[in-house]
Amino acid sequence: MKQYKILLIIADGLGDRPVSKLNGLTPLEAANKPAISDLLKNSMIGLMDPISPGVIPGSDTSHLSIFGLDPHVYYRGRGAFEALGAGATLKHGDVAFRGNFATVNNDLVVVDRRAGRKLEEGEELVKELNEKIKEINDVKIRFYKGTEHRVAVVLSGKGISDKVSDTDPHYEGLKVLESKPLEDSTEALRTAEIINILTRKVFDVLNSSEVNKRRIEQGEKPANIVLLRGAAHYIKLPSFSSYTKLKAAAVSATALIKGICRELGMNVVTPVGATGGIDTDYNAKAKAAIELLKENDFVFLHIKATDAASHDGLVEEKVKAIERIDKVVGTIVDNVGRDNLILMFTGDHATPVEVKEHSGDPVPILLYVPYPIINDNARDFNEKEARKGSLRIRGLDVTNILLNYSNRAEKYGA
Amino acid sequence: MKQYKILLIIADGLGDRPVSKLNGLTPLEAANKPAISDLLKNSMIGLMDPISPGVIPGSDTSHLSIFGLDPHVYYRGRGAFEALGAGATLKHGDVAFRGNFATVNNDLVVVDRRAGRKLEEGEELVKELNEKIKEINDVKIRFYKGTEHRVAVVLSGKGISDKVSDTDPHYEGLKVLESKPLEDSTEALRTAEIINILTRKVFDVLNSSEVNKRRIEQGEKPANIVLLRGAAHYIKLPSFSSYTKLKAAAVSATALIKGICRELGMNVVTPVGATGGIDTDYNAKAKAAIELLKENDFVFLHIKATDAASHDGLVEEKVKAIERIDKVVGTIVDNVGRDNLILMFTGDHATPVEVKEHSGDPVPILLYVPYPIINDNARDFNEKEARKGSLRIRGLDVTNILLNYSNRAEKYGA
Repeated sequence: MKQYKILLIIADGLGDRPVSKLNGLTPLEAANKPAISDLLKNSMIGLMDPISPGVIPGSDTSHLSIFGLDPHVYYRGRGAFEALGAGATLKHGDVAFRGNFATVNNDLVVVDRRAGRKLEEGEELVKELNEKIKEINDVKIRFYKGTEHRVAVVLSGKGISDKVSDTDPHYEGLKVLESKPLEDSTEALRTAEIINILTRKVFDVLNSSEVNKRRIEQGEKPANIVLLRGAAHYIKLPSFSSYTKLKAAAVSATALIKGICRELGMNVVTPVGATGGIDTDYNAKAKAAIELLKENDFVFLHIKATDAASHDGLVEEKVKAIERIDKVVGTIVDNVGRDNLILMFTGDHATPVEVKEHSGDPVPILLYVPYPIINDNARDFNEKEARKGSLRIRGLDVTNILLNYSNRAEKYGA
Repeated sequence: MKQYKILLIIADGLGDRPVSKLNGLTPLEAANKPAISDLLKNSMIGLMDPISPGVIPGSDTSHLSIFGLDPHVYYRGRGAFEALGAGATLKHGDVAFRGNFATVNNDLVVVDRRAGRKLEEGEELVKELNEKIKEINDVKIRFYKGTEHRVAVVLSGKGISDKVSDTDPHYEGLKVLESKPLEDSTEALRTAEIINILTRKVFDVLNSSEVNKRRIEQGEKPANIVLLRGAAHYIKLPSFSSYTKLKAAAVSATALIKGICRELGMNVVTPVGATGGIDTDYNAKAKAAIELLKENDFVFLHIKATDAASHDGLVEEKVKAIERIDKVVGTIVDNVGRDNLILMFTGDHATPVEVKEHSGDPVPILLYVPYPIINDNARDFNEKEARKGSLRIRGLDVTNILLNYSNRAEKYGA
């Protein structure tokens, strides 16, 4: 049996609901999609629940599922995945926190949870923290800059736990909290102590930092504390090839997704011009995917623009993004040849433009294969047609389905 | 509420894809099925994923699922089920291997992995091995003849493990491998040692066997080693009646399926003329099912012909097999009376005739009940109509569904 190449295209936040500005159509319905429509002649379509029906997925938990890893096993909290997204390399058992640069007064009362929102010196501050705070009680400490005011903090060492409470009081006017053990274990007690020492040290370093003296001179609030939340043990992800036998690559410009793909051992490519935003260079992404398909069995192409438009409530931008993704599909299929690959197109979750947030609705999914199958003869690919399709799956099924229809699955049993 | 008899008919490898020789129809579509069509007036139909979407089931894992036992709990590997199929009675904790009679030279380099493919003396050789090798280091050893050159080896005793590597080098020209522990445990170490002693003893017994002297005289390769692979702990299966309260019987001529049904405590019947092949005596199977339905609540009728035809790529034979199964359905329903039973007809997996191997596609499923239900008013029972039906289930749901619609299920909760 011919083993086909696999192309998985995820349009982040693709799923939607009827939009009043579109006279009740969804963006996927409203978009002109000649390339995708052409694939419908030999495709199955349907609906996917990235986690399970009604559960609102994060992009992290849904991508884990789609790559065949149960988030209930591998996902212990956002801290670890925020750190991955910020470029951290994590070891099994590391404890990671999400954090904010914030402004406190000398009594450690929070004055601004985001240090005035605009923080251009994040890189500098993280560098200074990494130079001045390397270890506390034999536990290694690392800081990673996230987007805007965000920062991830990673603890590495023996006898640490993620069962500790946040230092972030979550409201301004309140004092930075003491981290407390959330279970009766020496590891949790020890970790809370380390976090409390860390908080004090971070304040000392940042409060006397030249960066913050400059900010104060310029009339800006100092970024003189890091508020921590969401402690999470990192459960080491297996490599994608270890359980799929696929040589895999990813095209993405989104930090969190790139971090996950890197951890899975994929070759991650971010073409020049790919931004993770509405203005991304679609053609550069198509070209990167075409190149990667030459050398890899599996190429994952992630496009964030649909989600970015949804979060901003920009209906026309979402429609436009889908139409550009359709061109990407056309370019890749024409180049690689429609007889040489199977192609799945779906989203990692719904982000209805009128909701502006992720939702737990199922997401339309399309699977094109280059040989005769029981195809759904759908007239269009959208949320309404998808309801009538034959696929009704969960995110965790995606990888198995791709292996099956590319003739690359191994039999489970005899 | 009347409790109905349950008839479950599994046509092995029933599911298929459009077949070019049938002008794009599937065998199930092409087959003339008056008896099944007649049941559609009061049936639900749909699709079943024997394990989960995309996973390619073995006949063993899928039958476990269909009988309500999660293979992820009960299935530790093929060795144990190969042994069941070969007639072994296994105890919880036994470690079983799949094996081949093969030919090695005096340096234990594999010359032929199947000892010349045609091995008519398997029974004799297994008998000799069982007489001469009964125990190694307090662990009981048993050999069972499988089909053709296949043999199963079972270890019974305390402190043994299935975490040991194969002795089968999987390629000719390589030396028989030493079994190695796959984890750092005394049990794994001990088992690997036993296997290595066993391999040597097997060679000594077989190499000096009269059978092999005869084979060499006749110009055939000696079957002078057993190559082992797929070590698997046997997890004792509960009896089917313990969790269903059903008195159950099975009609099958296929070793693996018979082994599983026996372990589940079913009364297993193989009528004279039933072969497990294309040439099986369908009428004898129908008669056996009719007899068993008198004394049992649940009768499972397994027909291998559809799978056998699929593996051989024989489209017309598969269509013919389905048409004969339709006659079996008609004979049983007419005899037992359509008001007296519920009937499920499905496959344990798809074996597309053009693929000639199991695939992970969903399988069409039909459930007839003798009282008014929300029926699917399907025009035909095939892969395409099944997509539009109301059932969208997994193998593990089958037993619960049968209990429910036969009015034999117990409430889960208050």
